[in-house]
Amino acid sequence: MSNNTTKPIIGPSEKVAHFEKDVWSIFTPLAAETKAINLGQGFMNFNPPDFVQDAANGAISDVAANQYSHPKGRPRLRKALADSYSPLFGRELDPENEIIVTAGANEGMFATFAGFLDEGSEVICMEPFFDQYISNITMNGGVPVYVPLRAPAKAANENISSHEWKLDINELRSKITDKTRMIVINTPHNPIGKVFDEEELIEIGKVAEEHNLLILSDEVYDRLYYEPAKQVRIATLKDFWKRTITVGSGGKSFAATGWRVGWLIGPSELIQYSLAAHTRVVFCVNSPCQEALAIGLEKTNQIPYFQNQIEAYTKKRQILSSVFEELGLPYTVPDGSYFILVNTTKVQFPQDYPFPAVLDSRAKDFKLCYWLAKEIGVVAIPPSEFYSKENRELAADFARFAFCKSDDVLEDAVKALRKLAPYIKN
Amino acid sequence: MSNNTTKPIIGPSEKVAHFEKDVWSIFTPLAAETKAINLGQGFMNFNPPDFVQDAANGAISDVAANQYSHPKGRPRLRKALADSYSPLFGRELDPENEIIVTAGANEGMFATFAGFLDEGSEVICMEPFFDQYISNITMNGGVPVYVPLRAPAKAANENISSHEWKLDINELRSKITDKTRMIVINTPHNPIGKVFDEEELIEIGKVAEEHNLLILSDEVYDRLYYEPAKQVRIATLKDFWKRTITVGSGGKSFAATGWRVGWLIGPSELIQYSLAAHTRVVFCVNSPCQEALAIGLEKTNQIPYFQNQIEAYTKKRQILSSVFEELGLPYTVPDGSYFILVNTTKVQFPQDYPFPAVLDSRAKDFKLCYWLAKEIGVVAIPPSEFYSKENRELAADFARFAFCKSDDVLEDAVKALRKLAPYIKN
Ligand SMILES: Cc1ncc(COP(=O)(O)O)c(C=O)c1O
Ligand SMILES: Cc1ncc(COP(=O)(O)O)c(C=O)c1O
Repeated sequence: MSNNTTKPIIGPSEKVAHFEKDVWSIFTPLAAETKAINLGQGFMNFNPPDFVQDAANGAISDVAANQYSHPKGRPRLRKALADSYSPLFGRELDPENEIIVTAGANEGMFATFAGFLDEGSEVICMEPFFDQYISNITMNGGVPVYVPLRAPAKAANENISSHEWKLDINELRSKITDKTRMIVINTPHNPIGKVFDEEELIEIGKVAEEHNLLILSDEVYDRLYYEPAKQVRIATLKDFWKRTITVGSGGKSFAATGWRVGWLIGPSELIQYSLAAHTRVVFCVNSPCQEALAIGLEKTNQIPYFQNQIEAYTKKRQILSSVFEELGLPYTVPDGSYFILVNTTKVQFPQDYPFPAVLDSRAKDFKLCYWLAKEIGVVAIPPSEFYSKENRELAADFARFAFCKSDDVLEDAVKALRKLAPYIKN
Repeated sequence: MSNNTTKPIIGPSEKVAHFEKDVWSIFTPLAAETKAINLGQGFMNFNPPDFVQDAANGAISDVAANQYSHPKGRPRLRKALADSYSPLFGRELDPENEIIVTAGANEGMFATFAGFLDEGSEVICMEPFFDQYISNITMNGGVPVYVPLRAPAKAANENISSHEWKLDINELRSKITDKTRMIVINTPHNPIGKVFDEEELIEIGKVAEEHNLLILSDEVYDRLYYEPAKQVRIATLKDFWKRTITVGSGGKSFAATGWRVGWLIGPSELIQYSLAAHTRVVFCVNSPCQEALAIGLEKTNQIPYFQNQIEAYTKKRQILSSVFEELGLPYTVPDGSYFILVNTTKVQFPQDYPFPAVLDSRAKDFKLCYWLAKEIGVVAIPPSEFYSKENRELAADFARFAFCKSDDVLEDAVKALRKLAPYIKN
């Protein structure tokens, strides 16, 4: 929302009138202004792999690949997705009816909320959540209902595994009403890095089954998990397939967040409604980048691209976490995705620092991150943005650092973060 | 919507539950099956210009142009749009606050409906309409209210100019209630080709002014008008700027319908709400294609690309219309866009032809177009799809042919259409 204060002659809809200024509109300009090393937003500072760039160049001179695609997605990409995901789903995925290509995972989720939510429909979201869920739900008349993932108390003093962040299944159960329509799962998780295990997913799936809920499984980081963790897909467990729509992202899988290509996988009886909404919202997805990702996915059958990528990211995780070790700042070791959630309780930053007024209504982590960008030269994101107002305090002592950056940038960030040492009180 | 008849375990939202099977899902497969010459959907069978393709190739190796863009759009594209459109709007457009880049014109309009419509808000739409308007309005709680553009009675017997299709301003006025929020204008018009003149736009604008309505001016064909017609922009007339959001399309302007890059131009006080919705629906638009179109637009300051394109389309219009002259089928001579609306009253196609059941509930033009694809080998679109159910009969005697195709394909279509001669009764 702009800062403009003139009252417009024509006012906004209720759907958009109450959005708060989002974290990105504070921290993206801050990154630009301070020239701090940007470990904020989760995009790469490197290119998609050469074989995908080459494929994109090829697509740009292919007439059909420059014009409208089928709203479901280009046949070659749906076929490549079916080939790539069928073994992972343990079933023959039908590219005609069980896969649709969306304008990023984001629009795929928006379309799914549009396809299933009516006025007052409730959607269970775990905190911390990917912030877009909430507006995507409310814009479609839905009501987010929150259940926090909780870190053990020791997280303030020692490193923990992302797996130690737990969902209390009884707490989740207590939130179900006769208006509940959906549960959103995110695994690997942003910002925690948690990869839900089979047991946890079965517990959640059973609740969905008991109450006939749709499961929207946001697995945009499905290609980014770190030994010994491995990606478990709720759609492959028990009989959950028939109530699950799984979300994927070409941006996350191929270092191409700006291409805006994502996908939904699920039974035809369900994704037909996401497709109905998607077709009206965007009609279809950028064609040349779809074609390029199709060719890219085909190549991953011949070259171990995803394995290499996991190795590269394992190293990146190591580079960045080393500085928190050094500083004695406890953090969550992520099993997946590309974020490190650091506990900042020990960082004594000046409380009388000249913080802008826009931070007044926010939890302490906004101030810490603001100061960090200004004085230490590294942008991190305050994770209280990913909590409901009621639960924001659960995140007040954390900061999220993205490591989807080249090794040299991470090394520079490490150097900069060392400047934190004098502010740390043990 | 799929043909699947198994009742899904989880049903759709009201928003998508009542969509009719759309014209594209009938005629796109028909085009594929019959291998007929496809003058149906409005996409080009040629590439974007070389300088735009080259720019796209450049962008694909530029790290920043592969990652998330600002939700408003890439700065270079917004700047290029401001430079290109400021003279056309007769004002200095501010690239920071008065322009946003959207995922095609389509998503830009969806976001605008989301940004301004509440449950029950009414939106005036002229018939025939671009079909996506209707679902985009209803998905956001709005109610489309229809006012037809009417052809003179002589259109069944002689060629008319697209300008002879008229809006009855008193009829429009009679549709305004205290729930009316917006008027949608489309100029140049799909499918009529009408380019609204200043007088017509002022009449409409005054109604908007009297009732404090937002004007959404869909000008995706703004670069495609034919001598002596010229594009008039309602945003430049009287004091209408402050209540107008103008929509443009990179796809239409640069023969790149599959790139899904469009834009909104309007006062900051208004487009901030489109931006708020857009940011949640798709977050941002395909980055490399934004960059390529930025460079493309910059080039149009040095080379007369848009003029050349108009010349090329003027020729295409001539090639295709020649066959209707020859056959004595009256048609509307379009002043803009790339469609010819042909009056088919004289075509006596067999009424006992084996038509599929899906056409039973449709107006006669669906049958004519089906038969045309099967027997004559040319796909056209039945324009009753672009009318409300009540007014469908107004279009029952028309068919829409797109001429955004290479000259050789148009020549082939001319040859195929000659086969209509024996079916024409004068
Ligand atoms: C958990 C989660 N889901 C979805 C998305 C959106 O993915 P995409 O860029 O494909 O829209 C993100 C992006 O950060 C994310 O972190
Ligand atoms: C009148 C009109 N508006 C909008 C659009 C959509 O344009 P885009 O492809 O940029 O979404 C079309 C496409 O056919 C159209 O005819």
